[in-house]
Amino acid sequence: MKNKNVVTIGGGTGSFTLLTGLKKYPINISAIVSMADDGGSTGVLRDELGVLPPGDVRQCLVALSESSETLRKLMTYRFSEGGLNGHNFGNLLLSALEKIEGGFSEGVAEAAKILNVKGEVIPVTNKDTNLYIQLKNGKTLEGEEQINHNFEIEKIGIAKNYLKPSAQANPKAIKKILEADLIVIGPGNHYCSIIPSFLVRGVTEAISKSKAKVVYNCNLANKKGHTEKFTLEDYVKSLEKYIPAGRIDFVTYNATKPGVKLIKKYEEKRSLLVKFAHPAKKKKYRVVQADLLSDVEPTFNKSDVTAPYRAFIRHDSDKLAKVLMMIMELGEYENIIRDII
Amino acid sequence: MKNKNVVTIGGGTGSFTLLTGLKKYPINISAIVSMADDGGSTGVLRDELGVLPPGDVRQCLVALSESSETLRKLMTYRFSEGGLNGHNFGNLLLSALEKIEGGFSEGVAEAAKILNVKGEVIPVTNKDTNLYIQLKNGKTLEGEEQINHNFEIEKIGIAKNYLKPSAQANPKAIKKILEADLIVIGPGNHYCSIIPSFLVRGVTEAISKSKAKVVYNCNLANKKGHTEKFTLEDYVKSLEKYIPAGRIDFVTYNATKPGVKLIKKYEEKRSLLVKFAHPAKKKKYRVVQADLLSDVEPTFNKSDVTAPYRAFIRHDSDKLAKVLMMIMELGEYENIIRDII
Repeated sequence: MKNKNVVTIGGGTGSFTLLTGLKKYPINISAIVSMADDGGSTGVLRDELGVLPPGDVRQCLVALSESSETLRKLMTYRFSEGGLNGHNFGNLLLSALEKIEGGFSEGVAEAAKILNVKGEVIPVTNKDTNLYIQLKNGKTLEGEEQINHNFEIEKIGIAKNYLKPSAQANPKAIKKILEADLIVIGPGNHYCSIIPSFLVRGVTEAISKSKAKVVYNCNLANKKGHTEKFTLEDYVKSLEKYIPAGRIDFVTYNATKPGVKLIKKYEEKRSLLVKFAHPAKKKKYRVVQADLLSDVEPTFNKSDVTAPYRAFIRHDSDKLAKVLMMIMELGEYENIIRDII
Repeated sequence: MKNKNVVTIGGGTGSFTLLTGLKKYPINISAIVSMADDGGSTGVLRDELGVLPPGDVRQCLVALSESSETLRKLMTYRFSEGGLNGHNFGNLLLSALEKIEGGFSEGVAEAAKILNVKGEVIPVTNKDTNLYIQLKNGKTLEGEEQINHNFEIEKIGIAKNYLKPSAQANPKAIKKILEADLIVIGPGNHYCSIIPSFLVRGVTEAISKSKAKVVYNCNLANKKGHTEKFTLEDYVKSLEKYIPAGRIDFVTYNATKPGVKLIKKYEEKRSLLVKFAHPAKKKKYRVVQADLLSDVEPTFNKSDVTAPYRAFIRHDSDKLAKVLMMIMELGEYENIIRDII
């Protein structure tokens, strides 16, 4: 039997977690990566070298890499002294390869060879573009970094999310979406890692045309000032501004409660667990409730491969991948299953 | 038959050329590398990150790498903009690996794995030390960078070459010298890449004890203000301050004259071809005269693998390696050969 084609759409820590789990299965993985990052080391490289943002791509490459632990450590190593202070080694690698190969996608493909990557990592666009949010009070937030650190987005309300200049999708991303058996969206920072991919022209059209099952991995916790009051339904509704209603087939939702201490820590930061109430009326998508919570104590060693974990309450790679594989195979039994929740 | 053990001692472009040729033979190569560099990107990294000098080691790793052309290009890629301006990517890799692995030699070993290096690259010492030259007028030149750019060394004369703090040899370097069948010294910048390795404690003692044949590859051209008036005999005499007279078995000497145009270009820079006159009295070493000259037009593209070529008149990797292999095998016929020149 031919391996099935799984496409992931996202960026950052969420994609790292997701791909770390998925790579253990005999499937063809294409990780389509958001290109809106402009903070930290990535921002400096964009400004100074005129390269495309390497940060999110790097995390996906590391997640899918089957090379040595040292090489994976190297990719996440951050210099902490002198003129290199703050620069991530993996970002430097991607920027140098972009220059040598004469294009970002070409550089990513070479990095994938060096890192012995299982599957493909595909930047959603090759266009040098930036993320903007226009708020309902007329104010415009420029760039992911600024958006990420603004905590009044939810209160004021969003008039428009957009990219400037507008960006056409990477043809390879479109091809992979059209050939997919399963498309997995999220988890990830909603306005900074998830939505930006759908602002790229061609992506939502391809998802509509594709025969793939579409799964959305709902975040575990809400983000202060961004999605603070969001329920599962609100996340889906927000996505349905870009993806036609009904196109999302499944939503995964974590049904395990974290410990009281962790919840309290989160509440102090106004980051609450996403709520979901068994709905009164039937939805167009199925909600797969499962234990998706990681119980590993997160480490924050700077040079650690697992450093991308910025959240305390987070998905378990293996649990998430298992549920997704279950969903992919579900088609075979579709007629005999009544419902999942 | 067991592969023979070949040890090279040197650094910089000379080692790059030598190793590029040697790696094509079925031999065990151990490249012992000078650690006195403190200029350019290497100098900045030493100062800011407190790492050992990666530049010379990097060139040896690239020469012995059997990985893709892209990976080799990457190792010699130099950033040319922003805060990274002047930094060589390969140097950053070695510095990051030194930090991750907790030691320079350990980092070099990991880099060798990543680069699929044939043989071993061994820093002559793990000590963070600096090269000094005290001139006969009492003036002291501090560091390789300063020494390299001082052109009065020959005129004033050297009172003393030394390292400060003094440095003990890397035990692995000693082991390899003791086990060697052939030890190859040079070619290379005489005071900055060749002599410094013999200032490290333990190296000359090991060479004396070793049963290996010792070959010195005499430079093709003299360096302005350093070795401007040197003949082949002067180079050997200078080395014999460190290696007991008689321990050098062979000296290779290029017998082919470069084109008139090249010689003129060199003469303008007061860099003249090394002279050698058939000696009146018998020497303790044999001089192997051969065509060792490269006739490839050198390229100076910054991101090119061949970028380490700084000299126009230089050794041909393949010709040099061939002559060295001939010398190594000569032992078998030693008794029937009278002399080589």
